[in-house]
Amino acid sequence: MTTPSFAGNARWEQAAIVGVGLIGGSIGLALRRAGVARRIIGVGRSAANLQRAIACGAIDQLVLESAGELPEVDLVIVCTPVDHVAKHVAWWANSAANGALVTDAGSTKARIVSEVDAQLHEHNPRQARFIGSHPLAGSEKAGVEYARENLFDSRVVVITPTDRTPPSAIVEAQELWKSLGAGVIPMTPAAHDQAVAATSHLPHVVATALAAVTPPDLLKLAAGGWLDTTRVAAGDVSLWQQILLENREPVLAALAKIEEELHLWRRALEQRDAAAIEALLQQGKTIRDAVGN
Amino acid sequence: MTTPSFAGNARWEQAAIVGVGLIGGSIGLALRRAGVARRIIGVGRSAANLQRAIACGAIDQLVLESAGELPEVDLVIVCTPVDHVAKHVAWWANSAANGALVTDAGSTKARIVSEVDAQLHEHNPRQARFIGSHPLAGSEKAGVEYARENLFDSRVVVITPTDRTPPSAIVEAQELWKSLGAGVIPMTPAAHDQAVAATSHLPHVVATALAAVTPPDLLKLAAGGWLDTTRVAAGDVSLWQQILLENREPVLAALAKIEEELHLWRRALEQRDAAAIEALLQQGKTIRDAVGN
Repeated sequence: MTTPSFAGNARWEQAAIVGVGLIGGSIGLALRRAGVARRIIGVGRSAANLQRAIACGAIDQLVLESAGELPEVDLVIVCTPVDHVAKHVAWWANSAANGALVTDAGSTKARIVSEVDAQLHEHNPRQARFIGSHPLAGSEKAGVEYARENLFDSRVVVITPTDRTPPSAIVEAQELWKSLGAGVIPMTPAAHDQAVAATSHLPHVVATALAAVTPPDLLKLAAGGWLDTTRVAAGDVSLWQQILLENREPVLAALAKIEEELHLWRRALEQRDAAAIEALLQQGKTIRDAVGN
Repeated sequence: MTTPSFAGNARWEQAAIVGVGLIGGSIGLALRRAGVARRIIGVGRSAANLQRAIACGAIDQLVLESAGELPEVDLVIVCTPVDHVAKHVAWWANSAANGALVTDAGSTKARIVSEVDAQLHEHNPRQARFIGSHPLAGSEKAGVEYARENLFDSRVVVITPTDRTPPSAIVEAQELWKSLGAGVIPMTPAAHDQAVAATSHLPHVVATALAAVTPPDLLKLAAGGWLDTTRVAAGDVSLWQQILLENREPVLAALAKIEEELHLWRRALEQRDAAAIEALLQQGKTIRDAVGN
């Protein structure tokens, strides 16, 4: 090796991060911290946003989507909104280096993965190796200015291999996310979507509904409990609209469960049933206590 | 004044804190920080707990409830569970100094205040001046070991005067809570109970229901959103059972509102109504954003 390199143990020569917001920017910073990518290219629609990403050290170089020509990279991480992921994977499958690892960071997986698998089965001139990913990290804050290199430390990333995923892509995606600080759990795309409906999407719906029914003149009384319980309702509206539409069936199933649970609450309160109220409180506390803070 | 005093600007000679847990202990620490009570007496059923309160500096001296004889104090703050408040106020009305200020820290107010007002109207040999209070501070942690002197800083305390409250008690209760760091909002007992049903009790029910319907095998995927939204579900079961039974009618009314809101969510998702989903998300976000973190 003749060129001295910042990243001596680099696993990838050039990585493209497509969509450089909170998640994409944090991936850039964490890739840099790990030294596993020699060069990090940010791709997007807004030059101003990509300039900010360069300024905060998340990427080395910017490429505008509209440029038409995409750089030859051996790692692609698509961090766009969920309804654009499949399209971007298709573009990169035509231009990336032979055998590049291509993954995404979308919050839903079944439709994206089946669409991409079908696309690549039809047309994959450079043998791109795709595997779906979902880093369970984020914030109600959006934008590269909130990106941080430790966003994935001790967090979980679900990867969603299918029968069509090359085994080497499973191994390499695990290496990727572990190098960024996360633990990796493989699940099928459908199992993933059902799981996050319960652990992420339903909490978002419930927190938002709770905020919405709070009379604004009472907000002066909102203390820690209300603030915690409604925190995620501050999240980005169009991002969540897409996620909830994309995952509507598992979300509806999860919604039915909490509607039933609230019905039990209604009955217990209406009947002044102290034992039932205690049991309902204890069930929730037992599950919450199993996790900690 | 001949005795040198730690609390040179003491407003009260002797304060009794009845029930020394998180709230009572924090009141003790904050009274001491403010220097407004010359001596702080902790009253309770457990000598071991009161010894811990002395050790952490929350009280100067302990008196067991079972002792029969209560010290002559000019300030009484009853921090017991809500269903014991009225009984304790009656005891102290017989033994406190003439004209003592008596208040409480109960999470519900209408029943407590009407019961105490009626009691004192019948029998108030020492002209105790009662006013209900509710400091909107707390934590899912219980016990004097979590008490801290800044628990009330920048928090809100609702005081609930009625036609029977002596005007001087309103002024003095405001002084008390302000000296502990809080802002004070007067409300009627009924308005208070309706307000906290929306801002505290409904969040507790919803967070608990959400935790209860999360399949335990998926807890490994619980990230920040789930953790925040369910945090209060870890709260003390018997404390919350009492609060919810005590305030059941306002809680049922608040529950009806979120059931209706979740019904709108169900319909929007079933109909794939992107505009309705966006509107629901935006309503919740607007209210949440009005408060901040």
